[in-house]
Amino acid sequence: MYQFQQDLSQLQQRINGFLENRFCAIDSSPSPLAEAMKYGLLLGGKRVRPFLVYATGRMLGAEMSQLDYAAAGIEAIHAYSLIHDDLPAMDNDTLRRGKPTCHIAFDEATAILAGDALQAFAFEMLSAAPQLSAEQKLKWVSTLATASGIGGMCLGQSLDLLSEHKQVNLAELERIHRNKTGALLSAALQLGFIASPHFADRDLEAKLQHYAAAIGLAFQVQDDILDIEGESEAVGKTIGADLAADKSTYPKLLGLDGAKQKAQELYRQALAALNDVPFDTSALRALAEFIINRKS
Amino acid sequence: MYQFQQDLSQLQQRINGFLENRFCAIDSSPSPLAEAMKYGLLLGGKRVRPFLVYATGRMLGAEMSQLDYAAAGIEAIHAYSLIHDDLPAMDNDTLRRGKPTCHIAFDEATAILAGDALQAFAFEMLSAAPQLSAEQKLKWVSTLATASGIGGMCLGQSLDLLSEHKQVNLAELERIHRNKTGALLSAALQLGFIASPHFADRDLEAKLQHYAAAIGLAFQVQDDILDIEGESEAVGKTIGADLAADKSTYPKLLGLDGAKQKAQELYRQALAALNDVPFDTSALRALAEFIINRKS
Repeated sequence: MYQFQQDLSQLQQRINGFLENRFCAIDSSPSPLAEAMKYGLLLGGKRVRPFLVYATGRMLGAEMSQLDYAAAGIEAIHAYSLIHDDLPAMDNDTLRRGKPTCHIAFDEATAILAGDALQAFAFEMLSAAPQLSAEQKLKWVSTLATASGIGGMCLGQSLDLLSEHKQVNLAELERIHRNKTGALLSAALQLGFIASPHFADRDLEAKLQHYAAAIGLAFQVQDDILDIEGESEAVGKTIGADLAADKSTYPKLLGLDGAKQKAQELYRQALAALNDVPFDTSALRALAEFIINRKS
Repeated sequence: MYQFQQDLSQLQQRINGFLENRFCAIDSSPSPLAEAMKYGLLLGGKRVRPFLVYATGRMLGAEMSQLDYAAAGIEAIHAYSLIHDDLPAMDNDTLRRGKPTCHIAFDEATAILAGDALQAFAFEMLSAAPQLSAEQKLKWVSTLATASGIGGMCLGQSLDLLSEHKQVNLAELERIHRNKTGALLSAALQLGFIASPHFADRDLEAKLQHYAAAIGLAFQVQDDILDIEGESEAVGKTIGADLAADKSTYPKLLGLDGAKQKAQELYRQALAALNDVPFDTSALRALAEFIINRKS
């Protein structure tokens, strides 16, 4: 019987330990920049993206010791994006995971540079996995670079900022979040898939991408719901920030109940996409449920 | 007889054309983010790093059509670093290459994201070179990632900011600039070297790295001299900015004449490092001279 919380907790410990080790190996001399990078990378977080890398790769027979590098790379990208998104010129958040954001704990210049250096660290990680073929590592690099730049995460964040104080329809909102959150979650699955012996199976890849698209959007819908219903202490950031910034959200467009229905529908889509996947999909199923039921 | 200005100009046109083509191919829909990226990437610049990639690779028999991708990647990293360095929280510059800096022409959030997306674009470029082996491209990725992150450029910029309003000795100043400017210039040579048939020749690599270290430092010494002696119109940025920010510079530590002697000494070191290199080093020699004699 698969135990999601136990698996998540073990994989969280695994990636945290790996990140700490690798980071210490790379950082040769103490500096505020290195401290700020560690602060952003190592202090908490649900590690959903690393979980997706591990769960997908493990399901398909990839080596966990190779998946570590992909998990570290994608979490470094996620960590840099949070540091930059929190900056005064962006979302201007002072609280993240219950702690002062990076530019509050350090300063703005150091936070900008820590984000920049974490992005570089991500690509160092991907290229460093021993024993995986150069072709597979290179595919990691292009997958993560595409998902995090103008074709994905950065575009999504930019569209999100532009949407403030504007009427945005559902299609536009989905475009924002497919890029802002969805692209990186899809990439996480993709990295696990690439590290596996099945990396040439286009049919399997398409099914996993359907699952990824559904949970990616569900993740954002639930985030929007938590911004209204969540408790600041559990969520670890300022509640009501979206409303305060007059941001377009699913509850705003669909109502709170409509947003909850949307999350359920996406959950069903995610499970349906896994129906024909001939592997043990219990971890991915449990993650989909976790995403729409989480309180933080 | 080798004509440096003609070669530089042709290679500038080559990389500008290539960047424009590749950027248009990747950018699927117009957005302020894509505009800001283009603004930072395509409007001017000496293209010293691409020149180094091309000149080194060409000298060693690499294919120009493969070097394009490395040249584009390293220039995208350079462009992102300039956009971020100019931000109000960093150097707070309003003028770059004679034009408003990115956050002035757009806004701060867009400038931060444009820099982030350009870094991702750089790694997309490196992984996209057709025909080069996956091993070589992966070595490109790890070389550029290491040179631009906590082990190089970002560290240097952080140390530079920390050195403001402080007494810094010559060893500390060199550490700043070895990282801030030197690491990326060395990486440029390295990328050209990796793309060549001689990429396993450690002895040749070491000689090229000596040359790179010397011109990297010379580049910064000359930058500091231009901040005092240059004309704003030619340099394209605010003259006296270092003095205004009370920055540690070579002229401050060595006097203006001392800084000029230092530049000459580094020039001689660069040429000496090329003495035993059994290839046509005329382009690299001419570049070294250009670096210490440039007026902008």
